[in-house]
Amino acid sequence: MKACGLVVEYNPFHNGHVLHARKSREESGADIVVAVMSGPFLQRGEPALVSKWTRAAMALQGGIDLVLELPYAFATQKAEIFARGSISLLEYLGCDSFCFGSEDGRIEPFITAHKVMSDRSVPFDAAVKLAMDAGNSYPASAAKAYQTIVKDEGALDLTKPNNILGKEYVSAALTNGFSIRPYTIRRVAAGYHDTDLSNDSIASATGIRKAIQEEGGKGLDSVSNYVPRPTRTGLEHYLSSYRALHDWEMYWPLLKYRILSSSLSELAEVYEIEEGIEHRIKQMAQTAATFSQFMTGLKTKRYTWTRLQRMCVHILTHTSKEDMAHTHLPTYFRLLGMNGKGREYLHNVKKDLPLPLISKLSAYQKQDIEMDVRAAQVYALGLSGPSQAALMKREYEAPLILT
Amino acid sequence: MKACGLVVEYNPFHNGHVLHARKSREESGADIVVAVMSGPFLQRGEPALVSKWTRAAMALQGGIDLVLELPYAFATQKAEIFARGSISLLEYLGCDSFCFGSEDGRIEPFITAHKVMSDRSVPFDAAVKLAMDAGNSYPASAAKAYQTIVKDEGALDLTKPNNILGKEYVSAALTNGFSIRPYTIRRVAAGYHDTDLSNDSIASATGIRKAIQEEGGKGLDSVSNYVPRPTRTGLEHYLSSYRALHDWEMYWPLLKYRILSSSLSELAEVYEIEEGIEHRIKQMAQTAATFSQFMTGLKTKRYTWTRLQRMCVHILTHTSKEDMAHTHLPTYFRLLGMNGKGREYLHNVKKDLPLPLISKLSAYQKQDIEMDVRAAQVYALGLSGPSQAALMKREYEAPLILT
Repeated sequence: MKACGLVVEYNPFHNGHVLHARKSREESGADIVVAVMSGPFLQRGEPALVSKWTRAAMALQGGIDLVLELPYAFATQKAEIFARGSISLLEYLGCDSFCFGSEDGRIEPFITAHKVMSDRSVPFDAAVKLAMDAGNSYPASAAKAYQTIVKDEGALDLTKPNNILGKEYVSAALTNGFSIRPYTIRRVAAGYHDTDLSNDSIASATGIRKAIQEEGGKGLDSVSNYVPRPTRTGLEHYLSSYRALHDWEMYWPLLKYRILSSSLSELAEVYEIEEGIEHRIKQMAQTAATFSQFMTGLKTKRYTWTRLQRMCVHILTHTSKEDMAHTHLPTYFRLLGMNGKGREYLHNVKKDLPLPLISKLSAYQKQDIEMDVRAAQVYALGLSGPSQAALMKREYEAPLILT
Repeated sequence: MKACGLVVEYNPFHNGHVLHARKSREESGADIVVAVMSGPFLQRGEPALVSKWTRAAMALQGGIDLVLELPYAFATQKAEIFARGSISLLEYLGCDSFCFGSEDGRIEPFITAHKVMSDRSVPFDAAVKLAMDAGNSYPASAAKAYQTIVKDEGALDLTKPNNILGKEYVSAALTNGFSIRPYTIRRVAAGYHDTDLSNDSIASATGIRKAIQEEGGKGLDSVSNYVPRPTRTGLEHYLSSYRALHDWEMYWPLLKYRILSSSLSELAEVYEIEEGIEHRIKQMAQTAATFSQFMTGLKTKRYTWTRLQRMCVHILTHTSKEDMAHTHLPTYFRLLGMNGKGREYLHNVKKDLPLPLISKLSAYQKQDIEMDVRAAQVYALGLSGPSQAALMKREYEAPLILT
């Protein structure tokens, strides 16, 4: 059995994701499609709209055969670490290939980009530093530097968010000498950050979330055209079971409390807090009434919104530099759900897996999963009353199984 | 000008406190009465019903001339440390005397108790240890031990809460060789912990709080007989300005978040967390839906309810053993309010004060007040929206002045 791996967030799972799964299967000739999915907190430093369990269920009903959780140590991270964690998991799981959506759509420019940046790292790094010293963020600087060095019309455009991620996926595979083969397909219509719902049936997850959240969960009607039926019913069911969709504002009281009750030196121990930004964080938290006010006050040209949001997630989950110091590569598989084919695949590869496979949290007592447990608990604390208790309990149960 | 000092919490200020102030003035022959009052969190490990500013205003309208804040380092503490902090502040402020309410009502038994316990500390400590090893709490063990050693009908009854506190006040003065003279008056009618409103006009603060809280702030009518008019209007005004009276349940989401997002070793660093109780705390927090459920789960014979609540306050305010290691005696006066006579007194003693007098927080930048600022901020975080912002801002303004 051949497996093709996808690196996903499914926040929420939409028609573009259905297409991605189908095309990935076709392109790679795989028998099954495996998704490595972020858990409660996402790469861009946000809580997921609904729990990983609900998102995994949507995926299993939309063409994915097996869903694993990308551990917190890799999920809420810059592209390089996010890619390293997810591509490693797919390689270790025995996947034959992985396939990502990109603005470019051809795999060669990604391989070229990886080679140029590693073979000519000295001039590249110098060009990046120059751009950063001029006050640009890292992603913007890397894109500028690459353009300067390559001077090729067909070179990868690193100002595009999916190209950036894709380049890191490819680098993760090539740097580590993995046997997994990279594929890419061109993303249809909607850009990663597009916030309008315009195209007939494909919209970005950002646009879909915006439509849903703007009307306080009543916007589900407006997104029906852009998501498969199980996503629509999954979101509805989540709302009726848990009484809310998650967003940053619901964690603001906890984040504000954590910031105000921590000393500056404690804040400086948090992962990704650098260059004295803890002073600014503390100052802004004192007067901000909402997360949105807080972030607007915090934003400077030096830091991307995403990077600041990731800092906030790490403060909220109380994740220190020390916690992250020992997480170069994943040390376990956390199974969120599978269908019959996924189960058959796992059965075949089980004896060769280089890492433990966790299907029930209560049966796994090792220290390395503590960050994931903490993130899941903090995520549940955004809810209140019985919803909170139910979601907290869910963490300790068996994975979803569709047969 | 002669000043008599009172050690108080005023949660809330009631008719018994009016009587205490008047009798203290008479007994001691003082010109003014000074109160050292706990701030946001109280000796028994609870948030105060209303802010220290509102409580200070009630006191100033009820016969107190000057109100100082007992720093957090001494306020949420066992009797010995609570007494050391408060009596020291009164001594340093130049008070001629202090006067406390007690079940006993005579000062000699307190002095005797202090002498017996210090002169015969070896047998006394052995008797305490014996009782504790039998599974009793410290206060119960100390009372038993004292009875065993003294065998005197008229000896101080150390099972009574105000006698326990009083003994510590007297000890604080005598141990440190202070010149301040101790007085005591017998408490009228209501016991410290009595929860019924029965006597005509005097009820315990516990009973008054219970009546107020049981009806969600609508119980103000039922307590009118037991509190001076300014307390009634002060509570009403607080409710209309800040939309809530403070209780532990409003801090439960923050406390639960802090407990679940802290490691066991971090919990063990919190002040007063000893003997591995962090395991039990973490376990109970996981499933408890309310603070009351949590405490009921946590309670054992080994720990008094009060001691457990104090642990919770220190977890909530993120106060470590290290934070508390350097706080043997107060290092500043924090002025909450005064009337014309209080101001005159301060003017007279100002040049001789051995500690800085803080009347505006923003003008005092030293590290030693950090615990108080954190406690005030965390206290405000129990409120939400504009109420929270207003209370947080209040902390930085000038003290109350009645002229």
